[in-house]
Amino acid sequence: MSDAVITLTTDFGEGSPYVAAMKGVILGINPRARLLDLSHRIRPQDLRQAAYFLAITLPYFPREALHVIVVDPGVGTERALLYVEVGGQRLFVPDNGCWTGLIAAGETPTVLHLTEPRYWRSEISATFHGRDILAPAAAHLSRGLDPHLLGPTAGTWVKKEMPAPVLGPDRVGGEVVFIDDFGNLLTNIPDTALAAWQDRAVRIAVAGKPVPQRVRTYGQAQPGSLVALINSGGMLEVAVAHGSAAKELAIAEGAPVEVELA
Amino acid sequence: MSDAVITLTTDFGEGSPYVAAMKGVILGINPRARLLDLSHRIRPQDLRQAAYFLAITLPYFPREALHVIVVDPGVGTERALLYVEVGGQRLFVPDNGCWTGLIAAGETPTVLHLTEPRYWRSEISATFHGRDILAPAAAHLSRGLDPHLLGPTAGTWVKKEMPAPVLGPDRVGGEVVFIDDFGNLLTNIPDTALAAWQDRAVRIAVAGKPVPQRVRTYGQAQPGSLVALINSGGMLEVAVAHGSAAKELAIAEGAPVEVELA
Amino acid sequence: MSDAVITLTTDFGEGSPYVAAMKGVILGINPRARLLDLSHRIRPQDLRQAAYFLAITLPYFPREALHVIVVDPGVGTERALLYVEVGGQRLFVPDNGCWTGLIAAGETPTVLHLTEPRYWRSEISATFHGRDILAPAAAHLSRGLDPHLLGPTAGTWVKKEMPAPVLGPDRVGGEVVFIDDFGNLLTNIPDTALAAWQDRAVRIAVAGKPVPQRVRTYGQAQPGSLVALINSGGMLEVAVAHGSAAKELAIAEGAPVEVELA
Repeated sequence: MSDAVITLTTDFGEGSPYVAAMKGVILGINPRARLLDLSHRIRPQDLRQAAYFLAITLPYFPREALHVIVVDPGVGTERALLYVEVGGQRLFVPDNGCWTGLIAAGETPTVLHLTEPRYWRSEISATFHGRDILAPAAAHLSRGLDPHLLGPTAGTWVKKEMPAPVLGPDRVGGEVVFIDDFGNLLTNIPDTALAAWQDRAVRIAVAGKPVPQRVRTYGQAQPGSLVALINSGGMLEVAVAHGSAAKELAIAEGAPVEVELA
Repeated sequence: MSDAVITLTTDFGEGSPYVAAMKGVILGINPRARLLDLSHRIRPQDLRQAAYFLAITLPYFPREALHVIVVDPGVGTERALLYVEVGGQRLFVPDNGCWTGLIAAGETPTVLHLTEPRYWRSEISATFHGRDILAPAAAHLSRGLDPHLLGPTAGTWVKKEMPAPVLGPDRVGGEVVFIDDFGNLLTNIPDTALAAWQDRAVRIAVAGKPVPQRVRTYGQAQPGSLVALINSGGMLEVAVAHGSAAKELAIAEGAPVEVELA
Repeated sequence: MSDAVITLTTDFGEGSPYVAAMKGVILGINPRARLLDLSHRIRPQDLRQAAYFLAITLPYFPREALHVIVVDPGVGTERALLYVEVGGQRLFVPDNGCWTGLIAAGETPTVLHLTEPRYWRSEISATFHGRDILAPAAAHLSRGLDPHLLGPTAGTWVKKEMPAPVLGPDRVGGEVVFIDDFGNLLTNIPDTALAAWQDRAVRIAVAGKPVPQRVRTYGQAQPGSLVALINSGGMLEVAVAHGSAAKELAIAEGAPVEVELA
């Protein structure tokens, strides 16, 4: 356990000195920890993007991994810091709701307040609790500490709902929830919402712009053509084959997506 | 072997959730794997850039490392997925030719088709075989699996030639094959092609623009001056000392490079 | 010791093939080395930014870590390459002064010249000593080599002073020394310089532009407001809450900062 993987997800930017400082703090407490960058390119203070990122990545990890998440617009205010066990994952995260999308239906997560200063750095700044509290707490846990020594069980916590699609009899309305580096538009419309219409003609539009073609995979489309497909996460996605749908349609996250029976 | 290094090279972008998912999948199969990012900034679907990147980096690695490469414009189509032993390296890569620049003269690489679903994820998407097939196959191999259990030997595979320079008696023609983050222009003209002219005056031009000076290293040039040198890979390179040749000359990869006896 | 952490800090850019080559070289000498990226986004040849980055990050690391730093505008010239023990840290770095900000008051660092070719790569390029000398020397040390075998003690080395604030009876003048990815302006004015004025009104200005408000943490400010605070490094910082001070004030590193008694 002492060589546990500790992943880092922040909005600090690639190559940030703040990420480096967290790595140093963790190795100072557990020199055998295996550090793994997930992303440092969450948009600054964007809890919605952080929530989406965590929801589509953490489920792939084994329970052995610990995840430190530092997207923390409320740093230094009264917001709590949490240790969470949810969906088979263990997280260190500010109490801002960016993790609650991982709660499975019917699941009651374990949530602790990180109140025990023994597992913090000796000096706590007002602006960087990722370095001063979350990172050292994770490092101590990775050495085998009983998590319940980190602080008391939290009775309540901030809960953020992921934006849900609106399902009608002949229409599904959703939105673009993430734009990847290819410029593909990931939506919140699951394939299950469209399954009943599988053999029927549908009209798909993003921000009012029609998407003319449905394909199974990018390689089936002419380079440059605008297509819709079910992506590797089981969700409707709009893409330009070998191009950027985000650029060509000038779309930002949050844009509306509509699917209608033709 | 179970704590083997597994490197990742993709066109997914820094901090991509797709890279994070692959890391999770690998650790789920082999929690002791040591993951190492090489690059996630290969230009989207740019097999030529991927080929060049692999050719100039993988030879530095010891045989113990496994390399997962996901630049995969043909994902979901009939293109195969490969396990390759080439030039003392072991790769997991789509059958798109981006690795064949590593084949040494006279070498016959070992190439297997990854057809054995036992070493895939249980569900296979149409758009992300890096996560669903390449990553789990590499993780299984890192635990000591005999590679021949991954699938049968491939009789043929896609082969991509690296662009070769044209050598004449008093002229060598090549091209810019890579532009690094300094804006240095790496060409495909090896020092051996110029060795015979070592003591003679030559004219060097990139996209028709003359390069006035040859130096041994950047530090010998006046800051801001345009120079040619033999770089750390043994190739002709055009650079602006303490500046960006790509920006100053407005050069993109593929631009022609000419060396002529003066 | 053979699985020591070796960190990498360069100006090569994220995903650079030069970073990948260094990783391969290190693993070729010590397959058990644990590689850790700190930053590859130091501005090209910017020794001042490198110095600042090292000064605010390396002190967090335990002594077990080795740090390879390649910001090397003088590569291939007569500048030496160093092994340094300073402030409890062990560095491999060109002799360009980017590390001397780590020297504590009264400390005499251990500095060696890396002159022993036995611990270099067999061929040394003129333009990439990070790969050919620094990386292999660090890899050999990580396997337990006595550092004194790397070369002789250096009697002298390039020393670069960090820019110091000017302290007056009713005025402190400093500068912006680093701009982070949030656009926060980190200055070289320590909280200790302002401690005596804690209960008095002060005027703060960056590049002549007044900063109207002081807060303890970002979350105390209205989103979009321009504030000054003491940051997690104990220094004066100017920020736009949930925004970018660098963009809104159009500030670059080096901009003057003034604090005056009102």
